Amino acid sequence: MSHVLGIDFGGTKVAVGVSGSDGPSFLDRVRLDTGERTLPRTLAAARELLGSPAAVGVSNCGVISGGRVRLAPNVPGWEGLELPRLLREEFGSVPVVIDNDVNAAAAAELRWGALRGVSTGLYVNLGTGLAAALVVGGQVVPGAHGAAGEIGYLLVEPAEPGFADGHAPLEERVSGVALAARGSAALGRSVTTAELFERPGAAEGLLDEALGTLAMTVANLCVVLDPERVVVGGGMMGAAGRILPGLSAAIARTVPFPPEIRAARFVDDAPLLGALALAHSASAKANP
Amino acid sequence: MSHVLGIDFGGTKVAVGVSGSDGPSFLDRVRLDTGERTLPRTLAAARELLGSPAAVGVSNCGVISGGRVRLAPNVPGWEGLELPRLLREEFGSVPVVIDNDVNAAAAAELRWGALRGVSTGLYVNLGTGLAAALVVGGQVVPGAHGAAGEIGYLLVEPAEPGFADGHAPLEERVSGVALAARGSAALGRSVTTAELFERPGAAEGLLDEALGTLAMTVANLCVVLDPERVVVGGGMMGAAGRILPGLSAAIARTVPFPPEIRAARFVDDAPLLGALALAHSASAKANP
Repeated sequence: MSHVLGIDFGGTKVAVGVSGSDGPSFLDRVRLDTGERTLPRTLAAARELLGSPAAVGVSNCGVISGGRVRLAPNVPGWEGLELPRLLREEFGSVPVVIDNDVNAAAAAELRWGALRGVSTGLYVNLGTGLAAALVVGGQVVPGAHGAAGEIGYLLVEPAEPGFADGHAPLEERVSGVALAARGSAALGRSVTTAELFERPGAAEGLLDEALGTLAMTVANLCVVLDPERVVVGGGMMGAAGRILPGLSAAIARTVPFPPEIRAARFVDDAPLLGALALAHSASAKANP
Repeated sequence: MSHVLGIDFGGTKVAVGVSGSDGPSFLDRVRLDTGERTLPRTLAAARELLGSPAAVGVSNCGVISGGRVRLAPNVPGWEGLELPRLLREEFGSVPVVIDNDVNAAAAAELRWGALRGVSTGLYVNLGTGLAAALVVGGQVVPGAHGAAGEIGYLLVEPAEPGFADGHAPLEERVSGVALAARGSAALGRSVTTAELFERPGAAEGLLDEALGTLAMTVANLCVVLDPERVVVGGGMMGAAGRILPGLSAAIARTVPFPPEIRAARFVDDAPLLGALALAHSASAKANP
């Protein structure tokens, strides 16, 4: 088994990791802040970490469509970047696989975690943002433009403004960022999402409402896909005890064939482990 | 090219057709009413029509899960029927492929119609009921229990009763049956769905509301799947001019990468043509 490189381009941090065996662990890892010259600094760090990778897996905070980064408007210099070409130029003939962070995390769960052996499955990421990955035939579904599972853009009300008006209706209601902002407004002081879950106080009602909307969404995704298992990950899973029972109840009430629901195996390092899973998968394909 | 048999078990009618070439046409066809002994009467009619089919495709008004018909509670004697085993016993070693009516219709669109050449696509059937088919990798997604795309069970409100309480929330709002019932109630006289679309009168508001909910649903399905094309079929497409513009507008407003939207090629005979498409596909696979 050759060494592979994983790169996780997040919204505020980049992580680069090296893995030597086909499992969810690192031999070595470095972290960088995003900002000026994020890509060249990352590539220099990667070169230093591992000169000749057998494959490179990349987790990206946007989606890749038409050879460019899309749906990453909040990261300076990232939207529209020709990331696949630039990475191919850097790594030459070595296989380079790129996917968005949530699809990458789902790939890690498929290869080593809670989605292992699952043919039709759903991965839901409750993080600062909100997104999902669909699994069909044991593979993450990319969609026609790399944007399958971008459930932050789902409408909750028929007439509300959506993507074309600069909105992500569901994400604005139930993501980590949205809950912290709405909770802080309700409580009249700045709280994190974790604090909100621990002591909601006067924000109890908005938390219930948001979790009810989330539960309906996950149940509806199960109606659409008919998965055998749903895996839930992301930073909000620190409050799994508050979140999962509502999801299970909504699924049991709504879905003709209710799937089992499980917490993700990987939380903190999920996108970087996902990048390594993509790299190991590409390496195994290139050297069968 | 050998002759194949297609059977469409609908809620009130059964159709049996014979096709001799790989295209959307019949050499011969018979229709039966459902009721007493539907299956043996159908099989006798099929035997008479074509003694030795190369393959048999079956479109079924329920879904097949665990070897039995499910989600067909309104058809007497059908729920729980071991349809796959009974058909295998009848047709011996000949390939027999069964799918639900909407997935079968999508298979016909993939083989001969508006989904031809599409890798990631969505088929939405607006008929007496409401259902969809997801297409990934050029194939209809079955789901873990044959129930992918059964969007009639989608919740529209977080707290409303769902499948477990005997409801199909979305279907009760926007299917052909629901619109006829709601329109008749609003107008104080019995109208068909077609009449309602032609002269809504006092039911204009409920029609707008239902179509708004439908448009949100289709746009949301596109957010989830990121299809390259959406094809809309079913009996309600007689009012395509009233329905499609709203769907297109909702998709344009909501979906990051809006897919094109097209009317289905097949409407009236879609499930039977779908059964024949399944049969031709199985025949081609068995005799490459």
